[in-house]
Amino acid sequence: MKDRIRKDDLKEKVMSAESAAMLIKDGMIVATSGFTPSGYPKAVPLALEKRVNEGEAIGITVLCGASVGDELDGALTRCGVMKRRYPYQTNNDLRNAINESQVSYQDMHLSHVTQFIDYGFFGKIDVALVEALAITEEGGIIPTTSIGLMPQAIKNSDMVIVEINMSQPMELEGMHDIYMTEKPPYRKAIPIEQTGDRVGTHYIPCPPEKIAAIVFTDIPDKVRPLGPIDEPSKLISGHIIDFLKYEVRKGRLPKNLLPLQSGVGSVANAVLGGLVNSDFKDLTCYTEVIQDSMLDLIDAGKVTIASGTALTPSIEGLKRLHENMKHYAKHCILRPMEISNNPEVIRRLGIISMNTAIEVDIYGHVNSTNIMGSRMMNGIGGSGDFTRNAYLSIFTTVSTAKNGEISSIVPKASHIDHTEHDVSVVVTEQGLADLRGTSPRERARKIIQNCAHPDYRDMLMDYLERAEKTKFKYQPHLLDEALSWHDRFLKTGSMKVD
Amino acid sequence: MKDRIRKDDLKEKVMSAESAAMLIKDGMIVATSGFTPSGYPKAVPLALEKRVNEGEAIGITVLCGASVGDELDGALTRCGVMKRRYPYQTNNDLRNAINESQVSYQDMHLSHVTQFIDYGFFGKIDVALVEALAITEEGGIIPTTSIGLMPQAIKNSDMVIVEINMSQPMELEGMHDIYMTEKPPYRKAIPIEQTGDRVGTHYIPCPPEKIAAIVFTDIPDKVRPLGPIDEPSKLISGHIIDFLKYEVRKGRLPKNLLPLQSGVGSVANAVLGGLVNSDFKDLTCYTEVIQDSMLDLIDAGKVTIASGTALTPSIEGLKRLHENMKHYAKHCILRPMEISNNPEVIRRLGIISMNTAIEVDIYGHVNSTNIMGSRMMNGIGGSGDFTRNAYLSIFTTVSTAKNGEISSIVPKASHIDHTEHDVSVVVTEQGLADLRGTSPRERARKIIQNCAHPDYRDMLMDYLERAEKTKFKYQPHLLDEALSWHDRFLKTGSMKVD
Ligand SMILES: CC(C)(COP(=O)(O)OP(=O)(O)OC[C@H]1O[C@@H](n2cnc3c(N)ncnc32)[C@H](O)[C@@H]1OP(=O)(O)O)[C@@H](O)C(=O)NCCC(=O)NCCS
Ligand SMILES: CC(C)(COP(=O)(O)OP(=O)(O)OC[C@H]1O[C@@H](n2cnc3c(N)ncnc32)[C@H](O)[C@@H]1OP(=O)(O)O)[C@@H](O)C(=O)NCCC(=O)NCCS
Repeated sequence: MKDRIRKDDLKEKVMSAESAAMLIKDGMIVATSGFTPSGYPKAVPLALEKRVNEGEAIGITVLCGASVGDELDGALTRCGVMKRRYPYQTNNDLRNAINESQVSYQDMHLSHVTQFIDYGFFGKIDVALVEALAITEEGGIIPTTSIGLMPQAIKNSDMVIVEINMSQPMELEGMHDIYMTEKPPYRKAIPIEQTGDRVGTHYIPCPPEKIAAIVFTDIPDKVRPLGPIDEPSKLISGHIIDFLKYEVRKGRLPKNLLPLQSGVGSVANAVLGGLVNSDFKDLTCYTEVIQDSMLDLIDAGKVTIASGTALTPSIEGLKRLHENMKHYAKHCILRPMEISNNPEVIRRLGIISMNTAIEVDIYGHVNSTNIMGSRMMNGIGGSGDFTRNAYLSIFTTVSTAKNGEISSIVPKASHIDHTEHDVSVVVTEQGLADLRGTSPRERARKIIQNCAHPDYRDMLMDYLERAEKTKFKYQPHLLDEALSWHDRFLKTGSMKVD
Repeated sequence: MKDRIRKDDLKEKVMSAESAAMLIKDGMIVATSGFTPSGYPKAVPLALEKRVNEGEAIGITVLCGASVGDELDGALTRCGVMKRRYPYQTNNDLRNAINESQVSYQDMHLSHVTQFIDYGFFGKIDVALVEALAITEEGGIIPTTSIGLMPQAIKNSDMVIVEINMSQPMELEGMHDIYMTEKPPYRKAIPIEQTGDRVGTHYIPCPPEKIAAIVFTDIPDKVRPLGPIDEPSKLISGHIIDFLKYEVRKGRLPKNLLPLQSGVGSVANAVLGGLVNSDFKDLTCYTEVIQDSMLDLIDAGKVTIASGTALTPSIEGLKRLHENMKHYAKHCILRPMEISNNPEVIRRLGIISMNTAIEVDIYGHVNSTNIMGSRMMNGIGGSGDFTRNAYLSIFTTVSTAKNGEISSIVPKASHIDHTEHDVSVVVTEQGLADLRGTSPRERARKIIQNCAHPDYRDMLMDYLERAEKTKFKYQPHLLDEALSWHDRFLKTGSMKVD
């Protein structure tokens, strides 16, 4: 315990998860650590669930960095404690509850969350519930595998509950770089000018009197398994690498590219994976989540620095990470999401963003969140923060879904998270469309010809050509048909016409 | 001429507009000064038009800061020289040509334009065609009433054509603050931390050997008349001011607010106008365009500093400005659009953005550009740069258009430029909806009840309630009806159902 709680008088705050959970009351706003299932509190949420299952009626608002594990999102949803949730999630039970409107959800840009907390836009944060590696001599909190919104949660609440997770290796200490911005009009320039710049402290400052409870736990992060890299993902990765090489030849990118950001999921993992066997070297990554393929890139000597706000390897990746923590620590920096997702830093560094879309329309508008316009999948996450401020913004998607019954290239996106103004490049397993400098009609032809699945290409061209015969030819649409593909899928199970 | 061309050997580059226009050849990419009809080149475009009307066949691509006057956009469109145009326009003839697909147009975020030039994404810029007040001893170019993309145009082209406009008063000298960013990976933090910070030079550096022609002209900026402030605009302004006062009371805004950005047009002018009679003082504005109401605010001692990239008063405003240039110069700074619209600075300063929408949907998605989904009006301009990075982002619109036959609040926006993730507040003459922290269904009720016109409120509630009965209740839509209001308007001339 000595190296975990380094300030002696805080030891009297140690208690059971059950006692700590009693501090959380009906109606409270609770901001937690955690970002993609890593570094999130586990014991106290489970204790809260128990209380409710024993008959208490509690409803709370939960703010996390991004998605968190089932012990938090799943458990609190199933027992009905979760009434409102911001800003991103990937849990099946929570997703269903959101789509049945049992949980109020607002899908937000991650870069907005921490400043909304600071600005008081959510109201007063009642409790900061955070997982920690250790508490320093001054009461500073050392995070575990993610940082997320922890600094702002701690700063803006009067009560901090700390879960010290003994399953997290002490070698994580030193990997974090905590820098916080002031509120306007006092905000200064963030002094990061290179991916690897360290500008802050190793811990999150916290007045010790705020710490109301310390709970010990050893529940490991419930990391998600990564599927094997499939053929479409490999093709997508290949198209992107060819494109990046071309940009280097044209003098529009330096030889070692610019800092890479890569989304979450299997395609994103495959894209980075493809770089292992490429000729690129001295790469850096300025991203949210450090996944397995990043470890591969570090091992292969391709990536010198990876900056993120969460370490989220698979189970095998976690083993590898723990065994070589010292090695990886030299190449990884964890930052608050306020910094990893900050428009200022992203724009300055000139990031190449690569995110996955649910669907893309012929004019380059991207849907990342709502299936058939209405059903929340996960959320926008940081994709908008990166896309909007990138040097080059790339979106990937497999050209069809649901065994080919859905075309991921559609006449009009059923929901729009990233507009035509923000998307530079679209890639599917079919090919790549470079949209820079194109008018909508030029864009449409590139996307249909290079990216759409052959089964849908003629249908899309037919839509476009008929739309072009109407009066307004800038971004031509047939309004009574624009969403008919989605409508047909909902009614018949296929976007195809018999 | 001595104070206009201060480097003697450049005097031999003086020539007629006709001779200078001969330097522009078919197929060229020409980047010009100008931002909203101010500070744009006039004599050379008119000479180019003459050449074409006399039988030459020339087609060029034109890049401007934003909209420019009829001598450039109108003349070159009518004679068919304008083949491609970026990134924003407001000229009637050009607009029609875009919507008839005679001119290829890409509607871009203004903050993307200058870096696209620097990155080489448009290809090589053949000619920089700029209006200047004077040329310094070193060949530096002093802009006139706007800066826009001039610095990057001059930096990235080998040939610079300068129009020295004698109708622009010398007192403008010293108002400009030229700071340019490097390309990544060499980009540094932009050192602006307060609205009034001056961080650059009074002129744009230009190697004198690049200057291929200097043309003297005295054609004045073709500024646009501003309509009188009407009743709906006054009501909108009142709602915004009440809201800002409330935020100050709640401690979420400082007493003197945060730097204001205000869009273009009559409503925007009225909103600022409303502040003249409010209790607010010591305000600052970090915006694109300095319009008449800004001069009023300066005169009333309400605004201490107005930073923009263009001075665009009305004809009366221009007179007032010229007569008191010394006075206004103390309170105004003109910056390159690379800086005025920079996400880094906007986010850091914590700007309150106020822009006008064409339509807003019940879930808070905003259409700023495409009427009925397809017909380009002007373009997104800087509205996305500000909205996306603001402290608070506000959109205004009158609740109906076309004599009430169109509802500006619709079930689903026919085009989306600003997503639900980016819009904090929606205001019409009916009232204000604060969307922060709301789920889509909560948002919809606020927008319908507070902002929609009474004639359409029941229809909107009916749509929402029927959509809520379908399977996916996160952001419920009826896909076969979502765009039917627009379709009905196109077919019957009204969104109303008989
Ligand atoms: C878009 C996103 C959901 C794709 O994730 P993925 O794991 O690569 O994609 P999958 O192919 O497994 O698709 C996920 C689901 O969407 C469905 N889907 C995919 N394309 C679809 C389409 N065009 N229409 C309808 N459904 C579609 C899949 O069928 C699957 O549904 P299921 O779970 O019912 O089988 C995911 O990347 C995401 O949430 N992105 C938004 C946030 C983000 O970009 N974060 C990174 C920021 S740093
Ligand atoms: C949105 C915008 C066009 C409104 O301009 P405005 O002068 O206040 O608006 P108006 O009421 O005159 O409307 C302009 C036109 O749109 C039409 N219109 C307005 N609302 C409409 C709606 N809901 N549906 C269809 N047409 C609509 C008007 O009828 C008018 O058409 P007309 O010229 O054929 O009569 C203008 O603000 C703009 O271009 N914004 C985008 C760029 C921007 O925000 N710049 C500021 C960034 S710093």
